[in-house]
Amino acid sequence: MINPVEVLTEVDCWAILRSHELGRLAFHHGEGLQITPVNFAVAGEHVVFRTADGAKFSDLVQDPQVAFEVDSSTDEVAESVVCRGVVIELSGEQALMTDQLRLRPWVSTRKTHVMAIRVTEISGRRFHLTKPWAHMRPE
Amino acid sequence: MINPVEVLTEVDCWAILRSHELGRLAFHHGEGLQITPVNFAVAGEHVVFRTADGAKFSDLVQDPQVAFEVDSSTDEVAESVVCRGVVIELSGEQALMTDQLRLRPWVSTRKTHVMAIRVTEISGRRFHLTKPWAHMRPE
Repeated sequence: MINPVEVLTEVDCWAILRSHELGRLAFHHGEGLQITPVNFAVAGEHVVFRTADGAKFSDLVQDPQVAFEVDSSTDEVAESVVCRGVVIELSGEQALMTDQLRLRPWVSTRKTHVMAIRVTEISGRRFHLTKPWAHMRPE
Repeated sequence: MINPVEVLTEVDCWAILRSHELGRLAFHHGEGLQITPVNFAVAGEHVVFRTADGAKFSDLVQDPQVAFEVDSSTDEVAESVVCRGVVIELSGEQALMTDQLRLRPWVSTRKTHVMAIRVTEISGRRFHLTKPWAHMRPE
């Protein structure tokens, strides 16, 4: 029997990360946690995203440790890549260079800060699914 | 012009949560954070999921504060619901009752613990998207 959980190589993880443009960012929020979807692009070993002044930006300045996740699934296979690292704000030429990235805002709100996660840890898994009910769905 | 970000009511948030079966759980992991996809079901105001003995289970026992997120998107609209709360382990009859839930494992690995997030905060947003490039995709 095939092992239902396959550990992905680092190279595969980066390739999967680069193939997505929506991920979820988890960060510290007071004593607790917060999690939010973000549009992102990959530049080198950084995950780059934009954010407005607001609660998320303040939380990230206060505690820059984050985790970031992308996933996708079909009826047969699901994949998930998680990276962890520290967020820094880009400025000057570095921030301007992100205009060259495939960092396309999905929502037309003003986002003044360009942030980058310095990824220190990346891991991913591929799940071979057993969803018998998926085949029982009405056409 | 339509406001690109719409705040959802609590009733809508619960309805969206109930319509999903895959979400992402963010939790404390040592000094940092971790985030992982989980299959779940909703029971009352609880988000119920199963987990194996392992790093995730130990982390949740050590610090039960979590955030949990579901999202979906089409070319026009994206929705995201986030809830926060505390995880408890269910046992006895409560754990057995989860067999009645639509809590279907996607992966055939052994998961012995039935966990429930007591949701203390739920919020959601609907984003009206501006993705001009989506219409430029080759057919």
